[in-house]
Amino acid sequence: MDDLDRPPHMTPDQFRELGHRMVDWVASYMERVGDGPVTSDAAPGATMERLPARPPERGDPEAWDDVFRDLDDIVLPNLTHWQHPGFFAYFPCSASGPAILGEIASAGLNVNGMLWATSPAATEIETRVVDWCAELFGLPEKFRSTGPGGGVIQGTASEATLLALIAARGRVAAPARVITSAQAHSSVAKAAMVAGLASGPDDGAGITLIPTDPATGAMRLDFLERTLKDANARPVAMVAATVGTTATGAIDDVPGVASVIGGAGLTQRPWLHIDAAWAGPAAVCPEHRSILSGVEHADSVCLNPHKWMLTNFDCDLMWVADRSALTRALSVTPEYLRNAATDAGGVIDYRDWQIPLGRRFRALKLWFVLRHYGADGLRAHIRRHVAWAEWLEQRVVGHPELELAAARSLSLVCFRHRSGNEATRRVIDRVNATRRLFISHATAPNETGASVLFGRVAIGATSCEFSHVEELWGVLEQAAAVEGG
Amino acid sequence: MDDLDRPPHMTPDQFRELGHRMVDWVASYMERVGDGPVTSDAAPGATMERLPARPPERGDPEAWDDVFRDLDDIVLPNLTHWQHPGFFAYFPCSASGPAILGEIASAGLNVNGMLWATSPAATEIETRVVDWCAELFGLPEKFRSTGPGGGVIQGTASEATLLALIAARGRVAAPARVITSAQAHSSVAKAAMVAGLASGPDDGAGITLIPTDPATGAMRLDFLERTLKDANARPVAMVAATVGTTATGAIDDVPGVASVIGGAGLTQRPWLHIDAAWAGPAAVCPEHRSILSGVEHADSVCLNPHKWMLTNFDCDLMWVADRSALTRALSVTPEYLRNAATDAGGVIDYRDWQIPLGRRFRALKLWFVLRHYGADGLRAHIRRHVAWAEWLEQRVVGHPELELAAARSLSLVCFRHRSGNEATRRVIDRVNATRRLFISHATAPNETGASVLFGRVAIGATSCEFSHVEELWGVLEQAAAVEGG
Repeated sequence: MDDLDRPPHMTPDQFRELGHRMVDWVASYMERVGDGPVTSDAAPGATMERLPARPPERGDPEAWDDVFRDLDDIVLPNLTHWQHPGFFAYFPCSASGPAILGEIASAGLNVNGMLWATSPAATEIETRVVDWCAELFGLPEKFRSTGPGGGVIQGTASEATLLALIAARGRVAAPARVITSAQAHSSVAKAAMVAGLASGPDDGAGITLIPTDPATGAMRLDFLERTLKDANARPVAMVAATVGTTATGAIDDVPGVASVIGGAGLTQRPWLHIDAAWAGPAAVCPEHRSILSGVEHADSVCLNPHKWMLTNFDCDLMWVADRSALTRALSVTPEYLRNAATDAGGVIDYRDWQIPLGRRFRALKLWFVLRHYGADGLRAHIRRHVAWAEWLEQRVVGHPELELAAARSLSLVCFRHRSGNEATRRVIDRVNATRRLFISHATAPNETGASVLFGRVAIGATSCEFSHVEELWGVLEQAAAVEGG
Repeated sequence: MDDLDRPPHMTPDQFRELGHRMVDWVASYMERVGDGPVTSDAAPGATMERLPARPPERGDPEAWDDVFRDLDDIVLPNLTHWQHPGFFAYFPCSASGPAILGEIASAGLNVNGMLWATSPAATEIETRVVDWCAELFGLPEKFRSTGPGGGVIQGTASEATLLALIAARGRVAAPARVITSAQAHSSVAKAAMVAGLASGPDDGAGITLIPTDPATGAMRLDFLERTLKDANARPVAMVAATVGTTATGAIDDVPGVASVIGGAGLTQRPWLHIDAAWAGPAAVCPEHRSILSGVEHADSVCLNPHKWMLTNFDCDLMWVADRSALTRALSVTPEYLRNAATDAGGVIDYRDWQIPLGRRFRALKLWFVLRHYGADGLRAHIRRHVAWAEWLEQRVVGHPELELAAARSLSLVCFRHRSGNEATRRVIDRVNATRRLFISHATAPNETGASVLFGRVAIGATSCEFSHVEELWGVLEQAAAVEGG
């Protein structure tokens, strides 16, 4: 066997050296990310044309200088920098040092925690850390792993919503439908499509969108009641409530939703899922705990530490009140996955809680974040952003040409120009043209049903300081002034 | 704003120091992983009881000594070490230095490449690198991004199979069914369940399992033909062929499958998906290229660099011949995701190719692996494992009490004891009781339909050397001798 070519594996010493260099590169990125632009002005194809058309036939283990050069010269100029302090678009994707350390450890171990037996520590640390989070967010006992429920790390809230729907679907006759707010995240419609309930986002038979109250952005309970009682419509598998809509951060009246569901007199009570992907982490603060009011009525709830809780993407936490509903809908056990621990029934096999079979050791990064920051550190993180958003809100309210497009929700401020959508569009474009700041846009219906365009400022980047919010306001004020009244 | 508590963010300098330490920890793990046991003997709950019951109220940014101690004392003893040179179970989950460096860079950038516009380089490097792989594996032109098809990185083959099915389902009348081999991976049944085609793995109306040839383990074409022509059965959305089954590495006759599908005279030709999750990477070697024979007839194909191509979990490559089938089935575009580049139609938004909305920059690790190893390095990696498996195969064939349970497939050797299932079970248990070696088991039907138990030796760990295969054979031979003839 000695005549076989050996692949050029990196020795531990080479890895040590290059790993230090890569850590230094990341540290330097942290230091300089705010110095450059937040967005790229690259045209489509600009990155691609810098890459060879053909794959490398011969490897080059000595060419890491080139790799580092390409990171600087090809990757960085062509990225949108989600870790830039001027990134206020969409929702944050907040990295942190502790979480990156968790990713390094996880990559080094590279275990597959599909079954408890295939890496007990990966499963048990996940269970414990997710139970910790249930306590931090004030979730009721039924979501703890000590009872019939429990929590799990999913990649994204989209997956959590799909999984909730699949569990829910098992309880009603097919074809079923899902009900959610017209302002719910696109992942609810996508879940209905994937699960085969809807042929497309506009398939009203499979997905019923409830109009929202123009003042609050919340699902209208009178419409919800009417559609639940509609004898001509399909049975309802799931009602998905939103705590923090993508457009305006609106929070559905979950106790009201639960009460309407309970009072609808349905043979099978629909599954109630709460999508708190972005807003949920704020519940770590007692003063914001009320955003999760009514969670005791839910069958499942999810929120994303990768959005506003300093845990690198991807990390969504999903809790279910009855884990058997999930595992019943998803479990397939061929002989090659059978093992003594599973057969004895005393362990959790997270593969039955998710779409994929294999799974990364994502609990490490969350564990590290919780240990490093503690509940008090996470609270400080949330509180600064909310305070800065309040400050920005007051500036907008006091401005002659700008106005709030929706009530501020936690750290999300939605503004518009009083002259209308075109003026608002130009203000947003002027802010983004600085390439020091990046905000996004959305639309929502007003009282007359017309579509109102607005700018969204979502504060939450790890590197963001108050000075960046001030800088944003300066540019915003100037852009609004150019536009006039 | 100055009176607000500041969360204890790690400074770049602190990250530099701790990052170096974590890299050193990983390098040291690489050095010592083979010294300890490959599996854990921990009882359920052993990890959990080492963790505090309550979440940390106060963070402790100074307590990283404790974190490193816990990695050694709590995590390592309670893991199954997939990077151990004695790990021969399941299929490999092969990490490499270059891939870990890619994970570090990706974690540092922490961008969300859901849209081209939200990180152009993430999308374009992925497109280029996946096109490179199409060339390396000899995939036909239709799977390149330059035409109507293209490739994408998914998390796992389970997701690729589900996505193929969702695209396929859109082309036939509901309710539809999926056809696959009785030896196909459990993810095919799971996909049928998630997509709403089957109520469970045994729902024959939604998922038709074709018996396999006991000699080859391949799908029986005569049964396939019969079920395709069954006028009483549901329309067929997809036929899933397997290149490298989980149990024995069997390879379906894909040209034959395609020919049977073509000759069945169906109004709508079913989608042909090829699951080459484990075996696929071997196609980088010209002498193994034939495992992908017939791929030109497929609508989609997937294979996992995270299994046997030195790219950290998770990394599945999926190619489709018609990307519009995928995006039609999955695209939901709310206003907040609209942008000029997408509207102009000249870019790829990978969110429409996958279940989640958000996505990690996984292309970096694959890019680094391809640059470091090159096609020749990847070939050397595959060739060593196949040669060692041939050596092991010969030992088994020449042994008086052991025999092959199936023909060797690439680097997978399946053996049994001639005395039957009980003896085989004890041999497997004896190997695993060493805790220096870890093999798994599976079953397959023999000529009479009886279930035959066998041990599986899947060579593929990055750290594995020929000496480890020799060590395995020594233990195996001894265990077989204890069992007698």
